[in-house]
Amino acid sequence: MLGRKGEKTSMDQSIKQLDAFFNPRSVAVVGATKKINKAGHVIFKNFVENKRRDVFKGQLFPVNPHEDSILGFQCCPSITNIPSELDLVVIVVPASIVPSIMNDAASKKVKGVVIISSGFSEVGNHELENKIVTIAKRAGIRVLGPNCLGVYDSKTGIDMLFLPETKVLTTGEEVVATPRPMFGNIAIVTQSGAFGVSALDYLAGRQIGVSKFVSFGNKCDVDEAEMLNYLLYDAETKVMLLYVEDIKSGQHFLKVAREVSKKKPIVALKSGKTTAGARAAASHTGAIAGSDRIYDAVFTQTGILRAKDMEEFFDAGKALAMQIPAAGRNVGIITDAGGPGIMAADECELKGLVVRRFSEETVQKFEKLKREEKLPKFATNLNPVDITGSGTSEMFELAAEILFQDVEICGILLLGLHHTPALQEDYIDRVAEVAKKYDTPIVACDIGETEMALYTRFRFDKLGIPAYSSPEDTARAMNALVKYGSYLKKNRCLNDYVQSFLKGKKQ
Amino acid sequence: MLGRKGEKTSMDQSIKQLDAFFNPRSVAVVGATKKINKAGHVIFKNFVENKRRDVFKGQLFPVNPHEDSILGFQCCPSITNIPSELDLVVIVVPASIVPSIMNDAASKKVKGVVIISSGFSEVGNHELENKIVTIAKRAGIRVLGPNCLGVYDSKTGIDMLFLPETKVLTTGEEVVATPRPMFGNIAIVTQSGAFGVSALDYLAGRQIGVSKFVSFGNKCDVDEAEMLNYLLYDAETKVMLLYVEDIKSGQHFLKVAREVSKKKPIVALKSGKTTAGARAAASHTGAIAGSDRIYDAVFTQTGILRAKDMEEFFDAGKALAMQIPAAGRNVGIITDAGGPGIMAADECELKGLVVRRFSEETVQKFEKLKREEKLPKFATNLNPVDITGSGTSEMFELAAEILFQDVEICGILLLGLHHTPALQEDYIDRVAEVAKKYDTPIVACDIGETEMALYTRFRFDKLGIPAYSSPEDTARAMNALVKYGSYLKKNRCLNDYVQSFLKGKKQ
Repeated sequence: MLGRKGEKTSMDQSIKQLDAFFNPRSVAVVGATKKINKAGHVIFKNFVENKRRDVFKGQLFPVNPHEDSILGFQCCPSITNIPSELDLVVIVVPASIVPSIMNDAASKKVKGVVIISSGFSEVGNHELENKIVTIAKRAGIRVLGPNCLGVYDSKTGIDMLFLPETKVLTTGEEVVATPRPMFGNIAIVTQSGAFGVSALDYLAGRQIGVSKFVSFGNKCDVDEAEMLNYLLYDAETKVMLLYVEDIKSGQHFLKVAREVSKKKPIVALKSGKTTAGARAAASHTGAIAGSDRIYDAVFTQTGILRAKDMEEFFDAGKALAMQIPAAGRNVGIITDAGGPGIMAADECELKGLVVRRFSEETVQKFEKLKREEKLPKFATNLNPVDITGSGTSEMFELAAEILFQDVEICGILLLGLHHTPALQEDYIDRVAEVAKKYDTPIVACDIGETEMALYTRFRFDKLGIPAYSSPEDTARAMNALVKYGSYLKKNRCLNDYVQSFLKGKKQ
Repeated sequence: MLGRKGEKTSMDQSIKQLDAFFNPRSVAVVGATKKINKAGHVIFKNFVENKRRDVFKGQLFPVNPHEDSILGFQCCPSITNIPSELDLVVIVVPASIVPSIMNDAASKKVKGVVIISSGFSEVGNHELENKIVTIAKRAGIRVLGPNCLGVYDSKTGIDMLFLPETKVLTTGEEVVATPRPMFGNIAIVTQSGAFGVSALDYLAGRQIGVSKFVSFGNKCDVDEAEMLNYLLYDAETKVMLLYVEDIKSGQHFLKVAREVSKKKPIVALKSGKTTAGARAAASHTGAIAGSDRIYDAVFTQTGILRAKDMEEFFDAGKALAMQIPAAGRNVGIITDAGGPGIMAADECELKGLVVRRFSEETVQKFEKLKREEKLPKFATNLNPVDITGSGTSEMFELAAEILFQDVEICGILLLGLHHTPALQEDYIDRVAEVAKKYDTPIVACDIGETEMALYTRFRFDKLGIPAYSSPEDTARAMNALVKYGSYLKKNRCLNDYVQSFLKGKKQ
C-alpha cells in the first residue's frame, strides 16, 4: 500500500503527507447535513465552531447535493465544484457511494481523505475497500479509515468526533458524555473508535492532557507504523498510546517502532490475545490477531511497553509523560501506611523491580533523624521506609531527600495516605520541591475516592508527579519508567532522552 | 491462645464472646481526653455522638485519672471505679501502662478489650505483648489488637476510628478525609489499620456499603479465623473482605474458612508475597509472611478467592455482594463497542472463563432480530454480540433477554458504553428489569470518568448490577462469581447458597 513499504514515498514525504490530516489549509465535509444527531452534522459543526473560535484557521466546505447551505456555509453539490484547492476531505456518507467520492477527490487532487463511514472489510466487504485503495493509490491520496473516528487535534481545531459532547437524560438533565480532553503531551493512536472515545472520556476525567487523537479503523492505507513515525516529529507529543487489534505490516512496523522508541515512549494495548478475543477482533475491524507470543516478541524488540490492561495503559502513559525513565531497577519506597507499603513492595518485585534494603549510609541517615526526633522512634527504615501514622509533612520531605540522595536508588514510590491526623497536605508541595533538585523519577499514591484523596492525587499530578489510587497501580507505573529506561540504556540513548525531556520541561 | 484452638472455648462460646466487641451494653474508653486530635478524644467523641443520636444504646464511661469530666460525661479515675458491669474496654494509653489497665479489666470481669495502642510485638516488644495475653487468658478476657484501629459498626454505633472524618487544608477549606461508609453487606477484616481506613474511604466514595469493620493489628488473641466464624452468623454480612499479612493458626484457619466459605464468600488480599514484601510485613505487624505458594494452596482449599491487587479485592467483593455466583464457566458478552468487547473476552479467557460461540439456537434468535431490523444488519452475534455504535436501549434489552434465555450461558457481561448518540440511559433500567426474571448473574461496564459514565455505573449498582470502569475489571468481577460458584458446586452447596441469597434479596 501507499508509502507503507517505503517504495514510492520516503519517510519525509510521509510526514508531509500526513500533515494534511492534522493541519489542512482547506477541508470539505462530504455528507454534511442539517440533521442534528447525524455524524455529518456533528463533524461539520465541530469545524464551524472551531473556525468561529479562530482555532481552525483553514477554509471549510460542506458538501451535500441536497442542501443549499448548512450553518451559514454555502453547500457544494460535489467536491469538484469547490473553487479553491483542497487538502482534506472527510467522508460521512454510506459505504456504497464512497468510491465515487474518492474519484471526485482524485480529480480534485486532494491530499488526504478520512473515511468515517463503515461497511467495508470489517463486514466482509473487501472488494469495496480494495476499490477505494486502488483509486487512492493511483491519485496519490492518503487515506485514514474506513470505519474510523478520524482525527482530533485541539491546537489546529481538527475535530471529527461525531459523538455528542453532552447527552440529555430522559429526566431532561444535560450531562457531559464525550468530553474533549485538555491539551497535553499524550497522543492516542487507536484502531477501535469506541475505545478511543472511552480513552478521551477517561483522560478528560482524570485531567490528563492529549496532544493528538487518531482513530484509523480498518487502516486500508495509513497504519500505525506511519502514524508513530509522524508523531515522532510532532513537537506536542511526548508519549504515544497505541491500541491495536492487529499489526499487518510486521517488518515495517518493527523498523519504525524500534527507532521511534529511542526518542519517544510507546505504550501498547494489544487485544485479541485469546481465541475468543481474536475471533471478536476479526469481526470488529477484520483484524487477524495472530499469535500473542509474536506480538510480545515484537513489542519487546521494539521497546514498546505492553500494558496488560486498560488501566495500566493509561497509568503508564501518564508516568512517561510526567517523569524521566529510571536508570536502573532499584527502587525505594516511602510510606506512612504499613500495609499499602507492603503491597507496593510486592508488586514492584513481581514486576522485576528490586526493593532491597537501603545502603548502610542511607540507613544511618534515617537513624540520625530518629535520634534527633525528626522521625518516629518506631519508623522502619529498611525499604520501605515507614514514617508511620504519625508522619508529618516535614518527615515526608526529609525522608524523600534522603532517598533522592542515594545514588543506588533509581526510582522512588511515595505513598502518602492522607487519613492520619498529623499529615498536612502541604507535604505534596514540599516533596515536589525536593524532587525538582534531583533527576530520579518519582511516582505517588493515595488511596481513597473522597475529596481529600482526589485533592492529593490532582495536586501531585499538577506538580508533575504522577499519582495513582492503589499501591499496585503505582508500582506498575514505576515499572513502565524502569522498563523504558532499560530499553533506552540498551540502545545508548538514555542520556539524550533525559536531556531532551528535561529541556522540554523547562520550556 | 484463647479460644483459638477450640480447647477451652467452643465456637458457640466464641461468637457470644466476640459479640462484646460489636454489641456491648457498656463501654469504657481508657485514655479518653479533652485534647482534640488525640485518638482518646476522637474515639470517645464518636461514642458520645452515637449515643446522642441514639444509635449507640449502651452505657459509656470515660476513664482518665487527670480529668473530672469529658464532653459532659463524668470521668472515672480507673475502670475499677465504674459502678456498673462492664462489657468492653477500649484502651488508648501508652503501651507501658496497658498491663496495669488489663489487670483492672480482669478484676472488673470485663468481657472484651480493644487495645488501640501500638508499641508491642510490631516493634519487637514481645514480652510486653505476652504479659497482656497472660492476664487476658487468666481472666477470660478476649482481646482485639494491640496496634489496631478496632471496630466500626454503624448499626450499633461502635466507632473506634480515631482518624478525623474531615481535614482542614492549609487554605482553610474543610474537606472529607476519612468518611464513614454507608450501611451495606460487606464486612472488612483487616490486619493493617491504614489499609482498613483506605478501604473505608474507597468504599464510601464508590457508595459500596459496609456491615462491619474490624482491624486486629498484632492479633494477640482474636484472629482472622475466629472473626470469620463470627461474621458467618452475622445477619448483616454477606461477603467478607480479608486483608492479611500472615495467618498464624494455620490448621484452625483451614478448618474454619472451609466451612465459612460454604455459606458466605471470603475475598482475601494477602500481602508479603515477595522477599521485599515479607520483610516489610515483618516490621509492620511482626508478621512472618511465609511461602506465598502455601497461602495460595490454603486459599484454594478453603474456597477463599485471592485477589491479585487492591482493585480486584474491592471489585470481587462488590460482585459477590450483589449477584449470585455463576453455575459454570461459560459466559456471554454483550457490547456496543467492539474494542472493549474484545478486551473483556480476552480477560475472561485468560482467567479461565469460556467465551465460546453462542449455540445455534441463540445465533438464530439474533439473526431473526436482524431480519426484523431490530438489530443492526452488521451486528456480530458470535460472542461477544456487538450491537455496534448504533445500539439502542431496546437492542440492549432484546440482546440481554436472548442471553438470559440461553441455559448454556452461566454469566453475562454487559458493556454499555454511553458515548454513542443513539443510546439512551434508560437501557440500564430495561436490562435490570430483564435480569430480575432470571437467575444468571450479570455484571456491567462503562468506560469514562465524566458525568455520564459515573451516572451509568451508579445506576447499575443501584439496581443491583455491579458496574465497573474497565472491560478487564468487569471480567475479573465475573471471574470471582465463577470461581466462588465452582467452590460451592464442588461442595454441593450452590443451590442452598443461591436460595438463601435470593431470599435475603427479597427481604
